[in-house]
Amino acid sequence: MRILFIGDIVGKPGREAVASLLPGLKEELAPELVIVNAENAAAGRGVTRAIVRALFASGVDVITTGNHVWARTEELGLLDDEPRVLRPGNYPPGSPGRGWGVFRTTRGNLIAVVNLIGRALMEPVDDPFRAIDDILAATALQTPLCFVDFHAETTSEKVAFGWHCAGRVSAVVGTHTHVQTADERILPGGTAYITDTGMCGPEDSVIGMEVEAALARFRTQLPHHLKVAEGVATLCGVVIDLDDQTGKAHSIQRLRRSEELYPREPQEKL
Amino acid sequence: MRILFIGDIVGKPGREAVASLLPGLKEELAPELVIVNAENAAAGRGVTRAIVRALFASGVDVITTGNHVWARTEELGLLDDEPRVLRPGNYPPGSPGRGWGVFRTTRGNLIAVVNLIGRALMEPVDDPFRAIDDILAATALQTPLCFVDFHAETTSEKVAFGWHCAGRVSAVVGTHTHVQTADERILPGGTAYITDTGMCGPEDSVIGMEVEAALARFRTQLPHHLKVAEGVATLCGVVIDLDDQTGKAHSIQRLRRSEELYPREPQEKL
Amino acid sequence: MRILFIGDIVGKPGREAVASLLPGLKEELAPELVIVNAENAAAGRGVTRAIVRALFASGVDVITTGNHVWARTEELGLLDDEPRVLRPGNYPPGSPGRGWGVFRTTRGNLIAVVNLIGRALMEPVDDPFRAIDDILAATALQTPLCFVDFHAETTSEKVAFGWHCAGRVSAVVGTHTHVQTADERILPGGTAYITDTGMCGPEDSVIGMEVEAALARFRTQLPHHLKVAEGVATLCGVVIDLDDQTGKAHSIQRLRRSEELYPREPQEKL
Amino acid sequence: MRILFIGDIVGKPGREAVASLLPGLKEELAPELVIVNAENAAAGRGVTRAIVRALFASGVDVITTGNHVWARTEELGLLDDEPRVLRPGNYPPGSPGRGWGVFRTTRGNLIAVVNLIGRALMEPVDDPFRAIDDILAATALQTPLCFVDFHAETTSEKVAFGWHCAGRVSAVVGTHTHVQTADERILPGGTAYITDTGMCGPEDSVIGMEVEAALARFRTQLPHHLKVAEGVATLCGVVIDLDDQTGKAHSIQRLRRSEELYPREPQEKL
Ligand SMILES: [Fe+2]
Ligand SMILES: [Fe+2]
Ligand SMILES: [Fe+2]
Ligand SMILES: [Fe+2]
Ligand SMILES: [Fe+2]
Ligand SMILES: [Fe+2]
Ligand SMILES: [Fe+2]
Ligand SMILES: [Fe+2]
Repeated sequence: MRILFIGDIVGKPGREAVASLLPGLKEELAPELVIVNAENAAAGRGVTRAIVRALFASGVDVITTGNHVWARTEELGLLDDEPRVLRPGNYPPGSPGRGWGVFRTTRGNLIAVVNLIGRALMEPVDDPFRAIDDILAATALQTPLCFVDFHAETTSEKVAFGWHCAGRVSAVVGTHTHVQTADERILPGGTAYITDTGMCGPEDSVIGMEVEAALARFRTQLPHHLKVAEGVATLCGVVIDLDDQTGKAHSIQRLRRSEELYPREPQEKL
Repeated sequence: MRILFIGDIVGKPGREAVASLLPGLKEELAPELVIVNAENAAAGRGVTRAIVRALFASGVDVITTGNHVWARTEELGLLDDEPRVLRPGNYPPGSPGRGWGVFRTTRGNLIAVVNLIGRALMEPVDDPFRAIDDILAATALQTPLCFVDFHAETTSEKVAFGWHCAGRVSAVVGTHTHVQTADERILPGGTAYITDTGMCGPEDSVIGMEVEAALARFRTQLPHHLKVAEGVATLCGVVIDLDDQTGKAHSIQRLRRSEELYPREPQEKL
Repeated sequence: MRILFIGDIVGKPGREAVASLLPGLKEELAPELVIVNAENAAAGRGVTRAIVRALFASGVDVITTGNHVWARTEELGLLDDEPRVLRPGNYPPGSPGRGWGVFRTTRGNLIAVVNLIGRALMEPVDDPFRAIDDILAATALQTPLCFVDFHAETTSEKVAFGWHCAGRVSAVVGTHTHVQTADERILPGGTAYITDTGMCGPEDSVIGMEVEAALARFRTQLPHHLKVAEGVATLCGVVIDLDDQTGKAHSIQRLRRSEELYPREPQEKL
Repeated sequence: MRILFIGDIVGKPGREAVASLLPGLKEELAPELVIVNAENAAAGRGVTRAIVRALFASGVDVITTGNHVWARTEELGLLDDEPRVLRPGNYPPGSPGRGWGVFRTTRGNLIAVVNLIGRALMEPVDDPFRAIDDILAATALQTPLCFVDFHAETTSEKVAFGWHCAGRVSAVVGTHTHVQTADERILPGGTAYITDTGMCGPEDSVIGMEVEAALARFRTQLPHHLKVAEGVATLCGVVIDLDDQTGKAHSIQRLRRSEELYPREPQEKL
């Protein structure tokens, strides 16, 4: 199974990049499953029913989120109503929505999709390391294919979480920092891993937000209203190929596409 | 001028990777200046006089550091004695050592090398945004070439710092997270930028440290002694080309090299 | 000189407690100077021109604030216009308003009033330890009397700041935690000190806010809108007596008064 | 039942203050149960078997701890061996030791003693709010008397935790900040509450540690070795009276005693 995963979609530029680029990517890459993280899709914070409908209409199969999903309190019913929209599964019991689901692809394969959040330099939610163990105890009976979006701040917690899952899940992809990392690899046991997928949002920005307001925050330490930047967006993602029988990952490749022919040609590794 | 910069050297595996790979890299890339961040070179924390001597002997020209430089309190005199070893320049006045220097290369070009540290989710030191303004006021009189190692945790502070410097310095390269990012670019005005260069350390590790102890910390929240992992090291760096007259960057390229032919072939971007 | 200082005024219950209790306190205690911290006076966050006018009308002489003062961005002009309303003095240069002032009392004595903020487990502003040194260099020429409101989170930073100022200022009183501490003392050299003055706000609350929403935040880790609690308010403060010639403190006494005869009689120390 | 609780014992001065003052306090107050927090008893960090023996010999019945208990890794077997020494109960399952116990006093009454730790601005352990619910489900069958040492940093989490427990436990007393608060009260339903008990340690110190090194840390932001201060120690505690049948608290009184007749006479509340 080939999975296309797209990182945190930021605001209208991010949504428009998905709408304009996803059809071509689906044609080019022929993924069996398209997953996107939409925690910043609604003006930079949260997601709405209308956005979710549009994402599904563009060809998205499952939506993950993160800490910002709670920002739109009027839309939280969505998390209870729509099993294809996940929120991190290690919020306390009783939180709206679900942290994982087992989905059947159009080609008939079953795959578990899991959303978890880190705690290092973040809010003190339940332990994600024990959470994945519990979730795997439930999903492993149904399918060996398991994709995890681990939404976390520090590289140490994310890399450690990858090792914790190595050989037990198909893929651990990081989100939240909005900057793609160049450390994609297959961990021992066949687990595809990347520390952060990067965002789908405006390139000339501070992780998706307008540069001037973000700079003002750092320079003054006073509150400045941040809003999503305008301009050309870049779509960051990963493409992961799994063995349908074993759930082991064969490969993980980074993806970075711009809506326009962007003047900066991304440089290749030496 | 071509600059080769290598990210946080972690312990003996990192030092050995520099020793074995740097001669070949110098031959291949012919950099005019080699800078390395050595904050984790001494068993994962700090740097010593002996390590500094060895790095200079391998062909390093200037050494930057970060928050861990203070760990070896018995070696802090080094920072006062050796102007080619920098510590972040925005520690309070009176701290041992220097945060920047202007260096003449063997080809006769002058370049300022600056080391600063971020504050978001880190210790509350002096403002790095004002610090670079003050430093540039001093160095700009001597040379338009200026390389900055910005040692920081969050992507937002690092990206914002890049924009703060855009058009005013030759390069802002991030360190500290030990994971290379894939967002290298030339910012408007000719400033080479990358959020994190990545480390020079053991590949099968949690940002350089042994996996088992790092996992135990996250699973138990109890103190566990971390030590540098063993095994094959990867050297992460960037190669930056500057205009000698204007100090503007022409290009920035990521570099990732393994001591051995590593079984995992790093994948190219799609 | 006798100073009456009242800690963080929280919302309408806090403002009403000041309005109803301050006249009687002034009669009873005959303070030469009344200072209040009003950072939470406007619905729990910030302060407005109307509130400032009302506080001055009730007999307040100088107003200090803290991290929440910036919440009412439409009112920040107030900080530039009214020298008797201070904000922490160690925000970056160029911030609206002032961090200190030298005021003449009705009895003709000059006293410096200083507002500073801590950094431990708070935002990374400028160093308050160096800031007080710089401010004292300016005020000491005018008067030996100096009162400091140090708005900070951790006991360690607050106690350390007290020692840093011992013998150099008349009083260091803490604010921000909204819970009065029982460690008032005269530090060597004649500096009155208390770690936290406590708030002036509703007693049955979580540091001034409604219990149910505050509990929901801790139980769910999701955002819940906090609003100021209702009910009987308690006014917490300190009374400090200084030598008019030397600025040395003779005494510091805690003050805790309720608007109504409160069913819980506060217990005395054994 | 009368309980005497003494806050964080800091180093040798703290231990000596317990040894010299506890016999007199037991005679004067006739507590049925003496509980002390000893997380800082061993040179400021952790506790040892020898110290535990000495505390029991001085008349202590039960020992609670906090985040520093793990510092003495060679002594952690103690936590498994000695049921009268507790560690915070909301560390992950599998941690050494126990978080609570039900103890029979010499007068034959059963009481649950619980030790929990907060998470706001601290390490991300398990949820203390759910933990107390689970513990009460176990202890309530045995006894209505329940004493909780809640070891936490922020006033908001501590006050909220008090309200969470109001009417369900006999007492919630805070520890960890080392500064006694003046907010002792009986919460609705008969729960004695104080935000922090304060420490038992050297008075002229920064929360028990030498002033000069603590100041150097704040002034330089560099690591400085902290050690326990010398000099006269103050013992801070609370005395709580409970109804033996219902477990409801009748009263809570703060206690503050110095080994010597201390030149500073603590001031009474106005
Ligand atoms: Fe995000
Ligand atoms: Fe996020
Ligand atoms: Fe590092
Ligand atoms: Fe670092
Ligand atoms: Fe406040
Ligand atoms: Fe505050
Ligand atoms: Fe403690
Ligand atoms: Fe503690």
